[in-house]
Amino acid sequence: MATEQEQLLAIRNRIDAIDRQILDLISQRARCAQDVARVKQAFGGAKDAVFYRPEREAQVLRRVMDDNPGPLSSEEVGRLFREIMSACLALERPLRIAFLGPEGTFTQAAAFKHFGHSAITVPLRAIDEVFREVESGVVDYGVVPVENSTEGVVNHTLDMFLLSSLNICGEVQLRIHHHLCGFVDDVKAITRIYSHQQSLAQCREWLDLNLPHVPRVPVASNAEAARIALNEPGSACITGQGAIDIYQLPILAGNIEDQPDNTTRFLIIGQQPIPPSGDDRTTLLVSSYNRPGSLQALLAPLAEHGLTMTRIESRPSRKGMWDYVFFIDFDGHCEEPLVATALSELKQEASLFRILGSYPKGVL
Amino acid sequence: MATEQEQLLAIRNRIDAIDRQILDLISQRARCAQDVARVKQAFGGAKDAVFYRPEREAQVLRRVMDDNPGPLSSEEVGRLFREIMSACLALERPLRIAFLGPEGTFTQAAAFKHFGHSAITVPLRAIDEVFREVESGVVDYGVVPVENSTEGVVNHTLDMFLLSSLNICGEVQLRIHHHLCGFVDDVKAITRIYSHQQSLAQCREWLDLNLPHVPRVPVASNAEAARIALNEPGSACITGQGAIDIYQLPILAGNIEDQPDNTTRFLIIGQQPIPPSGDDRTTLLVSSYNRPGSLQALLAPLAEHGLTMTRIESRPSRKGMWDYVFFIDFDGHCEEPLVATALSELKQEASLFRILGSYPKGVL
Repeated sequence: MATEQEQLLAIRNRIDAIDRQILDLISQRARCAQDVARVKQAFGGAKDAVFYRPEREAQVLRRVMDDNPGPLSSEEVGRLFREIMSACLALERPLRIAFLGPEGTFTQAAAFKHFGHSAITVPLRAIDEVFREVESGVVDYGVVPVENSTEGVVNHTLDMFLLSSLNICGEVQLRIHHHLCGFVDDVKAITRIYSHQQSLAQCREWLDLNLPHVPRVPVASNAEAARIALNEPGSACITGQGAIDIYQLPILAGNIEDQPDNTTRFLIIGQQPIPPSGDDRTTLLVSSYNRPGSLQALLAPLAEHGLTMTRIESRPSRKGMWDYVFFIDFDGHCEEPLVATALSELKQEASLFRILGSYPKGVL
Repeated sequence: MATEQEQLLAIRNRIDAIDRQILDLISQRARCAQDVARVKQAFGGAKDAVFYRPEREAQVLRRVMDDNPGPLSSEEVGRLFREIMSACLALERPLRIAFLGPEGTFTQAAAFKHFGHSAITVPLRAIDEVFREVESGVVDYGVVPVENSTEGVVNHTLDMFLLSSLNICGEVQLRIHHHLCGFVDDVKAITRIYSHQQSLAQCREWLDLNLPHVPRVPVASNAEAARIALNEPGSACITGQGAIDIYQLPILAGNIEDQPDNTTRFLIIGQQPIPPSGDDRTTLLVSSYNRPGSLQALLAPLAEHGLTMTRIESRPSRKGMWDYVFFIDFDGHCEEPLVATALSELKQEASLFRILGSYPKGVL
């Protein structure tokens, strides 16, 4: 039998051969991206050519994730292909992305998750600045938060759509789960709970119900809370999977966040309408006439045509022309015949009607 | 001749075929990584098996970057392979990395650059906490800054090596260049210069020499400075390539940072010694006997054996046993015969001698 070194060497040689093929294929793929650019320029002229196609990227990601034979997780495979596409796209011109800063926030993480690390990102200080930079064409796209479980709906983002003609071109979701962890035999034995202030707030109801008399101690980060729980007898922490993996903390109670779907959702805003990808979401901005039953009448066509509404938010219109405006999300793309029919019926009942965008559902 | 749509469809079909092959190869590579783990466990037992091999990763990266046929840049190709290796390695167990926090700092960027995004990172509040977590084995590696052009040498990191037995397992460099930009016809026409406080400080000498009487206005970020320069006549900004690409600002003077090698350098610290990768650096911690000419005598063997010293830093020893200790970097690996000979000679002249690590030079 071969020695350990011989066996390892044989595997490493196999890996080297695979790497040569991967390098060759990635380079071929990049040349195809250049061919796409050449065709588009030949027919449309460089100025009009749109190289970034979110619906096409969503399709590629879904296919590789569906076809993934393992052993890598589909999420890892999707992430790798996102980076490969990002690098190929940047050959023409890196995408310029504005996001609600500062650097290091979740919004920047969302921007990289959606566009890959070959994009150039620029942090801006306010949501309206992100809209303005996209409108003026200084950047290609913007990334803004639209819902998060600490602040609820980010109203400022919704309000901007009343003033802006930009489209929604995509969405990104970052999931955040909280777990109660520590080296105690029983939840009842916990004497103190450490966590970041925001995490404590996000688990308030669960704590009030289950551990109402245990002091909650806010600390600088969930990682620090985990380290305290490791060292201080009787203490527990609320933290995420990352710190749990690192500190190998036993989970005493999982997913204790008050919102079961504790997700921060971001929108990609841009100037271009996005063709169907096969699994899309549409966001409407509508207002009903101010008469009894008008909101029900407005929504009826969606239900009648079997379209699944996933969210509705109302906002004061601030325009005087309508009392309230509604932001409605539903599954489907406005170019699909069924959706088009439903929307034309809905439009009859609306005093204000705008399709903010039909865009691929977040894949990763 | 085929229409635009037909031509694009043909290219997209080619890309889809390439993607299927890439997916297959990446999955094969991941299975090889599992084979490596199986062999190591069969021979060494799971507990002792070290799956992360920095010297091997450096070799893989160098080879794909050397072999890169284009059109992607070698840096992009290296980055993609870093992520592929990171994902394959995480199949066994994701690497746990502590870094000097908070989140979103350059040190976190360095951690991801070195370990890829499949690693789990945890921010800690102080350099000694990073050392402690690595020493206790709670995390696999730590990432700490060792030099940056604003603060100079990060003395606290050097001092930690006097107390710690950890090795240097690698290095990461982040290059930072500053350019003076704006829409003015001549540098002499500039009326105000905007930039982040730190960037203004990093270009102070150049500004004192070339534009001594122009007011310097610190703003929240270099991106904001770029936006002001875009809009305010007569103004200029100091910013990096990212903001220049986004705002398409003309460069009035490039690389104006006072330190020509304006690089922040980070060390990877860990428990394991790293075998040679073929292009390595060694860091020594030494002290000379307190007599005339002793430092020269200490350094002589390096020169005599033709080893290139790249850096030397002195620090008060704080131990009473030696007045000063020296941190010396030179090219080569302590297992190479020539280096081993030079070091055995150097050791004769030293009152304190410790090899902090021989490790691959930063590849990306």
